[in-house]
Amino acid sequence: MNILVTIDKNYLQPLYVMLQSLFINDDSETMTIYLIYDHLEERDLRELRQFCTNHHATLFPIQAEAHLFAEAPVVKHYTQAMYYRLLAYKMLPKDVDKVLYLDPDILVINSFYEFYHTNLSTYLFAAASHTKITKLTDQVNKLRLNSYDTKGYFNSGVLLMNLKQQRQEINEQDIFTYVRKHKLELILPDQDILNSLYGKRVLSIDDTIYNYDTRSYQTYYLLSNGEKDIDWVMTHTIFLHFCGKNKPWNKSNHNRFSILYKHYQQIVKREKVLNKKLASKKMRVIIL
Amino acid sequence: MNILVTIDKNYLQPLYVMLQSLFINDDSETMTIYLIYDHLEERDLRELRQFCTNHHATLFPIQAEAHLFAEAPVVKHYTQAMYYRLLAYKMLPKDVDKVLYLDPDILVINSFYEFYHTNLSTYLFAAASHTKITKLTDQVNKLRLNSYDTKGYFNSGVLLMNLKQQRQEINEQDIFTYVRKHKLELILPDQDILNSLYGKRVLSIDDTIYNYDTRSYQTYYLLSNGEKDIDWVMTHTIFLHFCGKNKPWNKSNHNRFSILYKHYQQIVKREKVLNKKLASKKMRVIIL
Repeated sequence: MNILVTIDKNYLQPLYVMLQSLFINDDSETMTIYLIYDHLEERDLRELRQFCTNHHATLFPIQAEAHLFAEAPVVKHYTQAMYYRLLAYKMLPKDVDKVLYLDPDILVINSFYEFYHTNLSTYLFAAASHTKITKLTDQVNKLRLNSYDTKGYFNSGVLLMNLKQQRQEINEQDIFTYVRKHKLELILPDQDILNSLYGKRVLSIDDTIYNYDTRSYQTYYLLSNGEKDIDWVMTHTIFLHFCGKNKPWNKSNHNRFSILYKHYQQIVKREKVLNKKLASKKMRVIIL
Repeated sequence: MNILVTIDKNYLQPLYVMLQSLFINDDSETMTIYLIYDHLEERDLRELRQFCTNHHATLFPIQAEAHLFAEAPVVKHYTQAMYYRLLAYKMLPKDVDKVLYLDPDILVINSFYEFYHTNLSTYLFAAASHTKITKLTDQVNKLRLNSYDTKGYFNSGVLLMNLKQQRQEINEQDIFTYVRKHKLELILPDQDILNSLYGKRVLSIDDTIYNYDTRSYQTYYLLSNGEKDIDWVMTHTIFLHFCGKNKPWNKSNHNRFSILYKHYQQIVKREKVLNKKLASKKMRVIIL
């Protein structure tokens, strides 16, 4: 299966945790991890590659070339990285027809094999909206983007991408033109662009399974009349999304799912220590 | 490393979860799992062996022979299984000098490599008491067992055993005699015997690291002046012990650690489904 991640130096540690949870919870097929980045130290890249190799996965790093973004307008404090997931169809190898994009603040807790193999037909993306739980925000977002007829405001943290279809339909000039026009209104640029330009071309999927907002346990529970309790989530949910400003890698225990996150964080930490020990052993052998 | 588990048909599923957590959180050495049982179906044993093999561990089943317990007194509704962990030194192969006994309601969340390699010197066991948090029970237990001078009442859920020393010091006749004499007072037979007969020969270890009572988060937190918060537990604690009547494999979400337990339960379930698929594929190949 093909996974897409894009990187920001600050999110390197969370990326490890996300990948660790992915490797533990889905070993049904071999994985190729496509990584789009601009600046990354050689050493960081080497460590990440080793980590993937240890888990029988292949890291495929793609450095974002400046010329691709020469005409891209810059918005507020956002960098060109805001375009990576929308322009993945141009940056990934031409023979890759499907890829699953995952935000680094996600924890994979069940196999996504069946989801990955969803037939996307001519849809460009599959994504979930956090509609039910953010009705107000939803209305605001819809008004702001003048797109009343979309099914909701899709969250761009989990995107199953039909790259083959995207290569036929998406044009980066449309994206750049849209951004120039709406510069001042954009709040979450890539998510806003996804919804405004391609909202009608998104296959809507269930957020409680594919993009579970960990801040909203009580709401999901109540809206399902108590069906979606912790047992249900642990059995059915595939992607836990730690949305919002408070992140589980920060000190505070911000919600009931943090403990799971912190446990995976610890597994990563242990593995890194172990790898360093192994590496220093190798060094000693070479020196001897 | 040598692990000891004893089985009761009702605890077969929890045993899988405990072992799964052990395999994920400690791969520092090869494991041999010694399993003492009396009645177990051939199929259950075969599945458990396959599970261990999948994780590069060896299952070493030991059927408890009736003649060993011919002179053992029966207490209330307890079966001969109450003697297994105390008589492990007789039942395990003579060349096994050390073994770590773990209850099936335990979740391993960090590596126990260093703990396992603790020098036990001439101690018979290493164990933790839940003293601080059960001061009252503790006094009651001490009085009941007439052993005022032990350091606490040790919990027998995690026992690092010095089998070499035990073979020199422990005599099953002492145990049987003690049981006959105290038949009516025994509440948790094996734990009571451990404390009364061998309490002074136990190396006391920190329960917050080696035998964390998951019911007592608030107490541990307060007693440590807030040091032992969730981050501390996830980083330092090795064995989470789901003590008490309410078990995390039952429906209710009984404490903040249940979610972790339920996640491991799900990993086991998925692996079993996968193994069955693989097995049926093999069957199809054979039939073809």
